[in-house]
Amino acid sequence: MQKLTYMIILQTTNGKIDVLMLCNGSATDLPSQGPELASMFCTIDSYDNHGEMSNYFAAMNEATTKGGTLSVIATGWDPGIFSINRVLFESFLADGTTNFFYGPGVSQGHSEAVRAVDGVKKGVQYTIPVDENLQKVQNGEILDLTPREKQLRHCVIVAEEGADKGVIEKTIKEMPNYFEPYNTIVDFVDEEEFIKNHSSMPHGGFVIRTGFTGAERNPETMEFSLKLAKNPEFTASAMLPYARAAKRMYDNGDRGAKTVFDIAPALLSPKSHSELVKELL
Amino acid sequence: MQKLTYMIILQTTNGKIDVLMLCNGSATDLPSQGPELASMFCTIDSYDNHGEMSNYFAAMNEATTKGGTLSVIATGWDPGIFSINRVLFESFLADGTTNFFYGPGVSQGHSEAVRAVDGVKKGVQYTIPVDENLQKVQNGEILDLTPREKQLRHCVIVAEEGADKGVIEKTIKEMPNYFEPYNTIVDFVDEEEFIKNHSSMPHGGFVIRTGFTGAERNPETMEFSLKLAKNPEFTASAMLPYARAAKRMYDNGDRGAKTVFDIAPALLSPKSHSELVKELL
Repeated sequence: MQKLTYMIILQTTNGKIDVLMLCNGSATDLPSQGPELASMFCTIDSYDNHGEMSNYFAAMNEATTKGGTLSVIATGWDPGIFSINRVLFESFLADGTTNFFYGPGVSQGHSEAVRAVDGVKKGVQYTIPVDENLQKVQNGEILDLTPREKQLRHCVIVAEEGADKGVIEKTIKEMPNYFEPYNTIVDFVDEEEFIKNHSSMPHGGFVIRTGFTGAERNPETMEFSLKLAKNPEFTASAMLPYARAAKRMYDNGDRGAKTVFDIAPALLSPKSHSELVKELL
Repeated sequence: MQKLTYMIILQTTNGKIDVLMLCNGSATDLPSQGPELASMFCTIDSYDNHGEMSNYFAAMNEATTKGGTLSVIATGWDPGIFSINRVLFESFLADGTTNFFYGPGVSQGHSEAVRAVDGVKKGVQYTIPVDENLQKVQNGEILDLTPREKQLRHCVIVAEEGADKGVIEKTIKEMPNYFEPYNTIVDFVDEEEFIKNHSSMPHGGFVIRTGFTGAERNPETMEFSLKLAKNPEFTASAMLPYARAAKRMYDNGDRGAKTVFDIAPALLSPKSHSELVKELL
């Protein structure tokens, strides 16, 4: 455990730790710290490396099974709430197509990529849905969209004094994976404006499934969306109920690694089952 | 079991019935048929009388517990998918307000009420969200709306020959509970136009939670919506995954009455757990 930057202890019972909330990064922190801590404590994390998810789940499942603990991995909103909607939407509307649009909002990964470019003093990257195609999908059109047709990337940059803005713009626009597959707009602003107008962390997005029911193929659309003023705070808010669920499942004898797919809605709520049935069903 | 109008047998294993889908009405059919059938078979239903939900759950829980069966009550979209979103939204965004808007679409209950009015030959009632207030809520305003501020009711009527349209309109608009609390528009059309343009069953609606995170009270909005061309077909489509879940839970030793709150997303999906983690988390 070399680099334990953040850890929140959520709740203790008689001095015993119930659940740890692991708030570290997915690139290098969680792959080592996650299994180590999960072998000793029940944990919740917001691991978000989609490509490595199966491996992380396997490592966490091994650690929790050996340790007799329970961990919920990959909570937050994507993975997390968006993942739940992907599964529910596919299940409720079997014959259909799911599309996602991200934004409008700040992408941390893309902002970091922009800030790594030579001559960039400050920078932020806004991911913006391509409105025309978002509206088509919302209205039930079945489209197979490329990344470029779904998202626009808007970079706002403060250049170092004397830096060549043309070179910065070209370097960003041609960056493979991050910007090359998209239409990218690069704007330069002065530092004062950047601090004033580009320091917040909005985000959001859409999960939309368009599909068909019945022999006449009736078009049906399901949509979930988020508009977040502050991405990190909302992510924390969406992680918290999984700590409640983890404690309940652990107390009920359940062990091992869990995902948001394995947790019934009632376990997330502070309300009793009879309150839920009466008030919210 | 006097009046068994519809029943679908979903699936049998070696000639044994796995799950019954009960597709009868909530007013008189399910309160008697539900517990009777649930004492013998695992069942799924779309019971939708919100005011009697706790009593129905108790009756179904008693029947299934005695019978050693498992039943999922109140599936569909409301109750059902909307209920899940109410619980998830409250859990993920604890400090907030949830609003619902229904429509645009045909309300069966209100259409039946209209058709019961003297002089009405054919009639349909469209529930329409009050667009101005829907947009405010979608944009994060915290509003405590009355029924009149949320929904508009639009009735399309074919009058019997010689009927007094003024009396029909007045009778509808003054009907307590159904129309009196709302702004209601009553339009009269001829039978040909009615059959041509008012015979389909669209519906839909919105669940929107606006709330706050963090010490600075950052505004955050979560929204779920449905746009359905054919309400009954979509309801059936949304019930089906609960039959899958019921069979899995029963095979796993679970018994008793369940709601959509008690069922983890993974149980609804035809995909394996490892497919879900890899593809949809």
